[in-house]
Formats: sequence, C-alpha cells, structure tokens
Amino acid sequence: MANKKITGRDVDFAKWYTDVISASHLASYSNVKGCIILEPYGYEIWEKIQEVMNSMLKKSGHQNIAMPMLIPESLMKKEMELVEGFAPEVAWVTEGGESKLDERMCIRPTSETLFSDYYSGIVKSYRDLPIKYNQWCTVMRWEKETRPFLRGREFWWQEGHTIHETKEEAETETRFIMENVYKKLFYDYLAIPAITGLKTKKETFAGAEYTLTIEALMYNGVSLQSGTSHYFGQKFSKAYDIKYLNRDNKWEYVYQTSWGATTRMIGALIMVHSDDDGLVLPPMIAPIQTVIIPIGEEEKIKNLAEKYKEELESKNISVMIDYSQKSPGFKFAEAEVKGIPVRIEIGKRDLENGNITLVRRDTKEKITISKDADIKEEVEKLLKEIQDNLLARATKRRDEMTYEAKDLDEVKKIMDTNPGFIKADWCGDLECELKMKEIKGLKSRCILEHEKPLTGKCVVCSKPANSLVVWGIQY
Amino acid sequence: MANKKITGRDVDFAKWYTDVISASHLASYSNVKGCIILEPYGYEIWEKIQEVMNSMLKKSGHQNIAMPMLIPESLMKKEMELVEGFAPEVAWVTEGGESKLDERMCIRPTSETLFSDYYSGIVKSYRDLPIKYNQWCTVMRWEKETRPFLRGREFWWQEGHTIHETKEEAETETRFIMENVYKKLFYDYLAIPAITGLKTKKETFAGAEYTLTIEALMYNGVSLQSGTSHYFGQKFSKAYDIKYLNRDNKWEYVYQTSWGATTRMIGALIMVHSDDDGLVLPPMIAPIQTVIIPIGEEEKIKNLAEKYKEELESKNISVMIDYSQKSPGFKFAEAEVKGIPVRIEIGKRDLENGNITLVRRDTKEKITISKDADIKEEVEKLLKEIQDNLLARATKRRDEMTYEAKDLDEVKKIMDTNPGFIKADWCGDLECELKMKEIKGLKSRCILEHEKPLTGKCVVCSKPANSLVVWGIQY
Repeated sequence: MANKKITGRDVDFAKWYTDVISASHLASYSNVKGCIILEPYGYEIWEKIQEVMNSMLKKSGHQNIAMPMLIPESLMKKEMELVEGFAPEVAWVTEGGESKLDERMCIRPTSETLFSDYYSGIVKSYRDLPIKYNQWCTVMRWEKETRPFLRGREFWWQEGHTIHETKEEAETETRFIMENVYKKLFYDYLAIPAITGLKTKKETFAGAEYTLTIEALMYNGVSLQSGTSHYFGQKFSKAYDIKYLNRDNKWEYVYQTSWGATTRMIGALIMVHSDDDGLVLPPMIAPIQTVIIPIGEEEKIKNLAEKYKEELESKNISVMIDYSQKSPGFKFAEAEVKGIPVRIEIGKRDLENGNITLVRRDTKEKITISKDADIKEEVEKLLKEIQDNLLARATKRRDEMTYEAKDLDEVKKIMDTNPGFIKADWCGDLECELKMKEIKGLKSRCILEHEKPLTGKCVVCSKPANSLVVWGIQY
Repeated sequence: MANKKITGRDVDFAKWYTDVISASHLASYSNVKGCIILEPYGYEIWEKIQEVMNSMLKKSGHQNIAMPMLIPESLMKKEMELVEGFAPEVAWVTEGGESKLDERMCIRPTSETLFSDYYSGIVKSYRDLPIKYNQWCTVMRWEKETRPFLRGREFWWQEGHTIHETKEEAETETRFIMENVYKKLFYDYLAIPAITGLKTKKETFAGAEYTLTIEALMYNGVSLQSGTSHYFGQKFSKAYDIKYLNRDNKWEYVYQTSWGATTRMIGALIMVHSDDDGLVLPPMIAPIQTVIIPIGEEEKIKNLAEKYKEELESKNISVMIDYSQKSPGFKFAEAEVKGIPVRIEIGKRDLENGNITLVRRDTKEKITISKDADIKEEVEKLLKEIQDNLLARATKRRDEMTYEAKDLDEVKKIMDTNPGFIKADWCGDLECELKMKEIKGLKSRCILEHEKPLTGKCVVCSKPANSLVVWGIQY
C-alpha cells in the first residue's frame, strides 16, 4: 500500500517529487523566496556525498579552501563573458553597516573571479604549479522559477578551480574530474547511469573554451544536467594576470579549469530511484543502511536487536533500532519513506520459529532467515545486491528511453509519446540546434565524443554531420 | 634560530601574529575588504575542529541542518532587541536579478530569526520536543576594524539552536554546551585552559535572558571571548509564535537556546601556543601529527621512512614524508612553521649508528632512539606528552597572569605593568562596570558563578558585592 502522503508517481510526477521531499524530510520551503532549508536527513545525504568526493579529491591531490562570499563589481567585470553570463541573475549588496557602499558587491554566483584574483598573487614559478583547490559552499543565483534541489536561488555545491603549467595538463584535469570523479560518483555511489560528453557552443559555460557535462535521465524521461567541468585555456589567466616563470625563465599565463556539482544530485537520487512509498536510496550513499524494528517489548527481542546492531556496526554498516512508541506498521512506512535499504523485523511469532525477516527497500522482497544466521554477512550481501540492482534497473530504463532519430519527423514522433534521450546527428550549426528546440523545447544535452554519427547527416538540415548529439528536455 | 619571516613575539605581538598566519599559510587577505581566504592548512584545522564538535554534538542528540543565508527585513524585525543589536553591522541585499527588491534582505549575522521562523512551522506537540539543530556556515557582520580570525566581516562558525518543553531542560542545554562541548574542546583538544562563566547584563547577547561564555587568555595577556551559549527563555518563541500543545493539552511557548563558536578558535591556537618559529599545534587538532624527513637519497633511508609511515598510520597517527627537493634545514623550518608536533629525521650518519632522531615541536627537544625501536609506541607517547605539556604550559602562564584586586588602585597598578585576567568583586551596577573600562579599556569577561567574592566589596564603589568577576582587555 502506497504512502498516503505521497501522490502517485505516474499520476502527477511533479507533485510526487515534492511530496517525497517533504514526507522524507529532506528539505522544506523557507520564508526566503526561492531558498530551501536543507533539513537534517537531506543534509546527512549531502554530508555522505561530500565524504565520498573529498576522499576522491584528496587522493588525487586536491585541497579544500574557502573564499569570501562577496565579489566586488570591479573584480567581476574583469572577465566580460562571465559578467554577461551571470549579471542578470546575481544578488547585489549595496549597503553595509548602515551606509551605502562605494562599490556594490554581488553574492558569488560562482567563484572563478575570486580564485583567479587569489592565484594571481600566489603563483610565481612553474614550481608552484599545479594548484588544485576545491571549495564547499553555497552560491546564489536570482532564479525566477525554483524547485527544491533542481533550481534554487541558493544552493550547496563544490567548485573546483585549478591552474596548470600546460594546456595538456589542464585538459587532462578537466577530463579526470568528469570521468574519474563525477562519473564514478554517479555509477558507484548514486547508482545513476549518467552519460558524459561535450556541451555545444551554445550550452558552454560563460568564459570557457569547452564544457564537459554529466547528464542523467529521470524516471519521467526528463534530462538533468548534473555536473560540469570546464576548460578555460588562458582566458581567465589573461584577464586576471595569473603569470608564472616557465622552465625557460619566461613569463607565461597559466592554463585553468573549474568544475562543479550541486545538491541537484539529491534531486536526481529522488527522480531516478524513488517510488510511491517514498525515497529509495542506494546503500553506498544512505545515511542509515539498516533499520531494526523490534515488534513487541520482550527482553529477548530487544537483546537480539542490540546484538545485531553491534555485529553490523563492527562491519561499518550503519544501523538504527526504532524503539519509538509507534505501531509496527507505522515504523515500516517510515523506514520506507526514508529509503533505508534494508529493514530487519524481529517479531515474536517469527522468533518462536527461530526466524527473523529482512525486507529490501528496492523490491519490497521479504526474506526469512534463521535468527542465528550470520547477520553481517546476510545484510552485507543484500546491500550489495540492492546497490547493483538500482544501477541495473536505472540502466535498463535509460536504455529503453534512449531513441535514435534520423530526421525531424522521427524526432517529433518520438516526442509525441516518449520523452527521453534522443540520439541524432548534428551538423554543428546553431540554427539547427534552435530548430530542435521548437520541438517541445528539446535541447542538446551533450555531444558523444566517442561515438560515430548514425547516418552522417544532420537530423535537421540533412547537411553533413560529424557529431552525434544526445537531445532531451531539461529541468 | 627563529624563522626569518616571523617578527619576534616579544618584539611586536600583533605583527608576530599576522606573520605566523601568513608564514604557515593558514589564511590570506582577500581583495574583499575585511574578508579573509581560509587557505588549505587553515581549512584543515577547521575541518578537524568540525570533526571533533560534530562527534560530540551527534552523540548528545544534535543534528546538522542548513538554513538560507538571507533574512528578509520584516522577519528580522519581529525581535526588536536582536535587530537593534545587529542593525548597525549587517550587509543588505537590495537588488536581485537586475531589479530592485520589494523588501531588502540582510546576509545573516546570526540565524535566530530563521530558526525561530522554521520552528514555528514544525512544532505541534510536546512529543516533537526537544529539537536540537546545529548549522555550520559563514555569517557576515560589517565590522570596521578587522583582524584575521579575531574579527572579520565574514567568518566561519557553528550556530546551535534548540527548543525545549521546559525552562529546566533549556537551561540544562545552555550549560551542557558550555561545559561539556566548548570547555571539553578547549581543554582536551585545543589544549587551552579557558575559563567559563556568566556574562554581565551589559555583555549579554541581544535578546538573551543570559549568556554563558568561554574566555581564553592569550600569550600577551589579552582575553579572547571564544564561544557563547545563550538562554532565551520564551522571548523568541513569543515573538515568532513557536507554540506546542503541552502534556495538559494547552498551548505553551517553547524555551529556547542558541550557542556558537567560530574560526576565532584558530586565532586562539596561535596566540596561546605558537612561538617565534611559527605555529605550535596540539596533536589532537593538528592536520599532520608527524613529518618524516629523509636526509639523503639512499634507498635504505626511503624504505625506513615508508615503513615508519605505514606503522604510524596503522595507529591512526597522521603522517607525511617530505620528499621535496629542498635542503634538510629548509624542511625542518617548514615543519616547524606549520607546527607539526613530531618530526622524525632519518639521516645517513645516524643510521650508521643504528639511530634516528625525533624532535618535539613544543620544546625543540631532540631524542635519539634506535631505528628498530617501536616507532608507533615512541611517537604515540610523545604526542601525548606534547598535548599534556601544551595544556600545562598554558595553564601555568594563565595562572601567573591572573591577578586579584581589592580596589581601583590595585587594578591600576596591575594594569600598568601586567595585562591579564583580573579577579575582583563587583556590586552589579553598570556604572561600576563602565568605570573599570576607563582603565585601559578593561571589560568584564565573566562572572565566576562557583567562586566566592574576595572581600564582599565592589572593587569600584566598595558597596556590597556578591559576585566575583574576571576582568580583562579584549580582542
């Protein structure tokens, strides 16, 4: 029986999405327009994501740093493309300490300017390079339409900013982050089979030479841009004068990258895995991996619960026992709405037969095992199966919702019934990209750099095409 | 030989302080006036502090949450004392997305208003209480004079906000945080013998019924307010309408607390422990506890370094090997400036005699041990000794710099030569508190609640006094 607080996913997807968020207490609306409150359970998921990424980033030589949240207008204006890209959506501080400021400052929408300004002061020689810094913070973009996790005025993210001696090294970094950090995070932890590729010029980040992106397909066929990695070449280093003495003792500008991923990933977790009973979380990212529900007050039941807890924790499996004064049915529903991967039910009758029950959150399957079974082993096996199953299920769905189209008629036919990823050749012209947009707002998601064109002809104009693009409707 | 980049501590304390910060790369000035950049090493120390506090807070039932960074003016104005306290020092956002806002919003100087507004929406019954949330974030206060870590426009902190069913429970929380979290952090981790007590009415936080404080004494005798815990009673709950149905099924306002500690603690670490060679960090908070410096390129030396590293890490002792292409002397100085508690030198000549050298950062003592000694045990013992020694040394200094005074003449005499903590009785009158300020800016640090008055007469007016106050010059 589905959770009563949650609208059916197939009835009204948008309503289902916000119902899941509020029923599982991930976030709530604040009285500050367009800004959410990241509630404890949502924050814990974010902390798990941070933990995983920090470990990957530190292993590959990145360090965390923290910059100011304000950017003086004059500093921002040194890189014109960036200003033009962000000017319409920043918040300006114009008064401080009861007087008008000489110069207004914006709350950072992103921090390229601050990092560039800082780097220009600390780099002298090729020996100082590379510098690979990352920042965890919130940024602000004055969006008109907002949706929790997907688009908000303030959101949580990490932004990496690196500078390098050579073009090659900077480009390697841009790709490393996309393929070895973001993609790994998505596949191995979030269990989301996201695709990666190159943004078209139109969709490239303001000021970047190129942008790599990771795009995930939601249950309803809509695409979600879930992380980007930019190669800047020397554009910022020239604007902000970030120079170093190279190995020939000559001044040269550094090569730069930046990359970011946001709390939008939590939105993706919901829209890829969750169901009418609430959240479904991959074990690798779930704040609580196992909940033990004692049914009844018997000492014997409590003792067994505590014994299991201890054993599971010895294997680093996170576990809570729900001792609250609620009915078992209520506790089951609560464990489901929170997406806890494995539930262990210890009931009196079962126990008389020497059994307990494990319940998988992903499939709802109930598994009866002996109370004396090796609980660590059983749960560990199940967590692994759930993790694998979520990725396999999402991959199957993604593949079923990925279409190929040779011309606009085929595109329209697909979009009339099935939103999803559409693979189609493209000639590279902006005009054709804009034509696609006329079909229900289709946008290029990314160019698949390692795949060959389907026909060699642009899906719009039929002229020669040498790139295969994935198109989709975006959040 | 002292570090050349660092002014002598006894020559110019203020200059020494900022020299240590820049030589050890804890923080640097940004081009945003009054805002610093928390550089990787400073950020790592902050992460260690967060780790320790998160563990203490989670064990005592607190959860992390994240609120918006902006506060609409109308929301702020619901609690007048708070507005009046902070109005002169907030930054206002007046424009967003290229248009003027209907209502200006300030960047949070603290978040009582946001938490109160949120709590008013989620609390219904005594069964929902207590709620004990904490937030890690930065806040902004438009200060005129700033100093890295001590006073800045933007700083990093945690702010806890809790609501309770009863006065008793809320008061217990206020004290628990001060005595079992902040004081424990200071003694057991930061190795700082800070004193705790009650703020006078004049120094109480805007809107609080009372404020508890933790005050640390710096090397130069100046006091640093290092954390505060406030009891609000029902003041905010009445202003923001945070009501619950109590056990008698009647509406009642919750009892509230808040408490915060900031990156100022890093300033305290510097000014209590460090010296002319740079930082001195207590092992319990040092990002790197041991550095191994191989002197020479021999395979034998490197192998031993790697073996030590592995053994130390197996005991969760953090360690780095300095393989950089710098001279041993340079590496020693760098290890010192960063305050790494234990340095292990592996040199060719020593090794021929079967020995290696350990060097303590706190005392500079060199200890020669057999290369085959149990390195884990030796280093572990030394780290414990250093931790204990730092606290003992700081306690001795604090006690030597704590004076007692019976009248203003005695106070003046002390202040003419020795700044420090001055213990003196106080009648409770604001007028006498202000009189003390005329003596080199002396301010009440805290009322010692558990100590008896010295003479029973106010140090200023000689009228009956029933509280013993610690006075000092503050940062």
